[in-house]
Amino acid sequence: MNILLSAQLAGWLLVLLGGVQLAPLAAALYFGEPTTPFLAAGAVALFLGLPIALGVQPDNLKIRPRDGFFIVTGAWLLASLFGALPYVTTGALVPVDALFESVSGFTTTGSTVMGDVESMPRSLLLWRSITQWLGGMGIVVFTIALMPILGIGGMQLFKAEVPGPVTEKIKPRVAETARRLWLIYVGLTVIEGFALWFAGLSGFDAICHALTTSSTGGFSTRNDSVGSFDSATVEWIVIVFMLLAGINFVLHYKLLAGRVKDFFEDRELRYFLAVVAFAMAAITFFMWNQEGADGSEPLFRSILFTVVSLSTGTGYATVNFELWPAFGHLVLLILMALGGMAGSTSGGVKSLRAVLVIDAVRKNLKTAGHRNAVRSPVQHAGKPVPDDVLAGIWVFLAVYAALIALMSLTIAAYGYDMETALSGGITSVANVGPGLGEIGAFDDFGHFPAPIKLSLAFCMIAGRLELFTVLVLLSPGFWRR
Amino acid sequence: MNILLSAQLAGWLLVLLGGVQLAPLAAALYFGEPTTPFLAAGAVALFLGLPIALGVQPDNLKIRPRDGFFIVTGAWLLASLFGALPYVTTGALVPVDALFESVSGFTTTGSTVMGDVESMPRSLLLWRSITQWLGGMGIVVFTIALMPILGIGGMQLFKAEVPGPVTEKIKPRVAETARRLWLIYVGLTVIEGFALWFAGLSGFDAICHALTTSSTGGFSTRNDSVGSFDSATVEWIVIVFMLLAGINFVLHYKLLAGRVKDFFEDRELRYFLAVVAFAMAAITFFMWNQEGADGSEPLFRSILFTVVSLSTGTGYATVNFELWPAFGHLVLLILMALGGMAGSTSGGVKSLRAVLVIDAVRKNLKTAGHRNAVRSPVQHAGKPVPDDVLAGIWVFLAVYAALIALMSLTIAAYGYDMETALSGGITSVANVGPGLGEIGAFDDFGHFPAPIKLSLAFCMIAGRLELFTVLVLLSPGFWRR
Repeated sequence: MNILLSAQLAGWLLVLLGGVQLAPLAAALYFGEPTTPFLAAGAVALFLGLPIALGVQPDNLKIRPRDGFFIVTGAWLLASLFGALPYVTTGALVPVDALFESVSGFTTTGSTVMGDVESMPRSLLLWRSITQWLGGMGIVVFTIALMPILGIGGMQLFKAEVPGPVTEKIKPRVAETARRLWLIYVGLTVIEGFALWFAGLSGFDAICHALTTSSTGGFSTRNDSVGSFDSATVEWIVIVFMLLAGINFVLHYKLLAGRVKDFFEDRELRYFLAVVAFAMAAITFFMWNQEGADGSEPLFRSILFTVVSLSTGTGYATVNFELWPAFGHLVLLILMALGGMAGSTSGGVKSLRAVLVIDAVRKNLKTAGHRNAVRSPVQHAGKPVPDDVLAGIWVFLAVYAALIALMSLTIAAYGYDMETALSGGITSVANVGPGLGEIGAFDDFGHFPAPIKLSLAFCMIAGRLELFTVLVLLSPGFWRR
Repeated sequence: MNILLSAQLAGWLLVLLGGVQLAPLAAALYFGEPTTPFLAAGAVALFLGLPIALGVQPDNLKIRPRDGFFIVTGAWLLASLFGALPYVTTGALVPVDALFESVSGFTTTGSTVMGDVESMPRSLLLWRSITQWLGGMGIVVFTIALMPILGIGGMQLFKAEVPGPVTEKIKPRVAETARRLWLIYVGLTVIEGFALWFAGLSGFDAICHALTTSSTGGFSTRNDSVGSFDSATVEWIVIVFMLLAGINFVLHYKLLAGRVKDFFEDRELRYFLAVVAFAMAAITFFMWNQEGADGSEPLFRSILFTVVSLSTGTGYATVNFELWPAFGHLVLLILMALGGMAGSTSGGVKSLRAVLVIDAVRKNLKTAGHRNAVRSPVQHAGKPVPDDVLAGIWVFLAVYAALIALMSLTIAAYGYDMETALSGGITSVANVGPGLGEIGAFDDFGHFPAPIKLSLAFCMIAGRLELFTVLVLLSPGFWRR
């Protein structure tokens, strides 16, 4: 294990998190709220982080898979622990709740224990939004730089091949790719921030919602989420940016580089958009047919908003979809579990895996009647997918389903109902945010006992890091030489 | 396609079904009920079947996979269509309901549209029980003789290697194996029948319940299922025989042949019993802890009965588990989906696949941290499982989940609640019988509109025949040369 490098990275992470405290600090000064929590958090982070970051000299910079699992899981844990500080020191939350809220932030999940968000200091709400934005940024690096090394769950197929200057070294290439995708991430955030501001939101609300849209996080500054602005313009803006945030950033880069055809011919994008469109159509038809709803724009908009919000794993709400009938709930649970595209900040199964599974099923069905038929291999980006990579996807799906089942059982074991239990399992592992039942669109997670909150936090981190990054650390074999 | 052989087999199937009408006919005479329906059904079957069976001379007896899919699916469809006749001609059910009941019988599912079973002619109830028993017998042949040829869903791994006289030809071996396993099937039925009779049931009730236990079917002659006998002895007898019926018949053969060690060291049996024991413990603990239940034998018995009934896919009930809290429901849904052992008459995922999936996950987790580690292959019966067989299992699971989801969505699309929808999807595809919500232990399926009933019937047949046997026929490529 490359302990020195891990320590140095942990040091720099603390320095980063400490420096970021300037933002909520500025907000606290502006709104006349207590500044001590952020000053203290910043000081702690810098005093701890700087000596480590500058003092530790790793003897090599090699990151093997073992180091990768350790560093990534450690980074999310450290950020979550540190991120919990301001919630505690402002007196807003007790430690368990603070940790839950912080994990929910850095994993871009968006589940909250805050029953009354609007009563919280605005500087704290800004910090809460920033945790999601930083988490999203972290996921971009994780996906580009580390997934290919770790080789788990089939995500090694995800190649962020952004065209750029031809270099022989792989490292500058990865750094360059990461830089470009970050620029897109920042760009999406800034543009949406301005759009929301022009649409009438306060600067504060615009910034917070831009930060939590581009990260598909979903924390809001309002108790009624985006619905509280009561503005069709705002909702349409958010719909567009949630959708953009759920799409593979590499495709955005290609689009910006003028490769429009590459964008629209992407198999996973087509699948993702088809799922959203189909879910939208099914729920709309059901609402007309069974519920006698009218065909008005508000109905259409509210359904589209919900479908996009849950399938990208953002988790904002404009209507209380808790009141929808079971058909709508089932569709939403499926969308939540499927998630958005690999290469975005979405969680869940991801279109990359879903498309390959569909391909595998189709090819298996095709050759089932013909004993000696040569089975054509599952393809990705025009190349056959190696057997062990496909096996990784299947194993991922099995563990994904098992973890959701275990989490649901845990919630139900405390006496909660079926919808709360099932949706709680899915929303945590798929990093969505809200669920159904007692954790619906306008409910919160505060009523859960501590063991459920901590289990949910575990599921959020495991789900966010493609399960195996975390589970490998828990297998006894990992720690043996 | 070997059309002539298919036709001849269809003819013999009709002859068999026609001949079997003697049983309900005798019951009708005994109980003084109308005999015409069974006379008519028998006559139709024999007049149609005999000429075909005797007249058609297939030019070869070769069954290729393509023929296998066609013959098996055709057999279940034909039996179901014919089996529906007596329900219609006795005036008991309208055609759609009759077809549903008949499919539910021959697939050993056990879902019923009959709200008041006790008001039905007893001869008809005997016929209903016989359909399940015949269906179970059919599954034994299907598993032994055809699954290895069809090579789908990983079930080709199931080798019914019953020790016997060494013969070089494969066909007598298969026939001999089938004969022995049928004897076990018949033996289980007869012994249970007598046991139930001695325990105080009427001869009629004893016969019917013996027929539907050994086939893990679950049709009862009483509105309150096995609970209506209100007898601990009867319930314990049924628990034991349901469990025996959910176990691989080859293992029973080994046990009878004195190979006790082979029986108890079977990895799949251990897994299956562990699942039952664990579910039992979890629900009992939950009932004590959350519901304040006492630790009495009746509570213990009712939980064990329910757990065994649903995990073997039988579907009898002694308590209204509909009233259990969500935790119990979630456990039951998982048990239903998992099912019993391959080589029994149980449906569902089956222990064979579950054990291999667990093995695959464990081995994947073990090597995830080590990039160049040689991944040890998944093992079955001491031999590595070929990659394409394992792929077949994964594809089976994906289609299994997708079919359950689609069926659940269909039910919910008609306005039903989440528990009804989810449990309806699982209970049909896994061939269990009852569900939750409006299709709970003591409810019936009569209230569903016709499209739901027909979709459920489709799922029952698809699930019973390991999905691919049926789905392959629906893919356009199958019918092209």
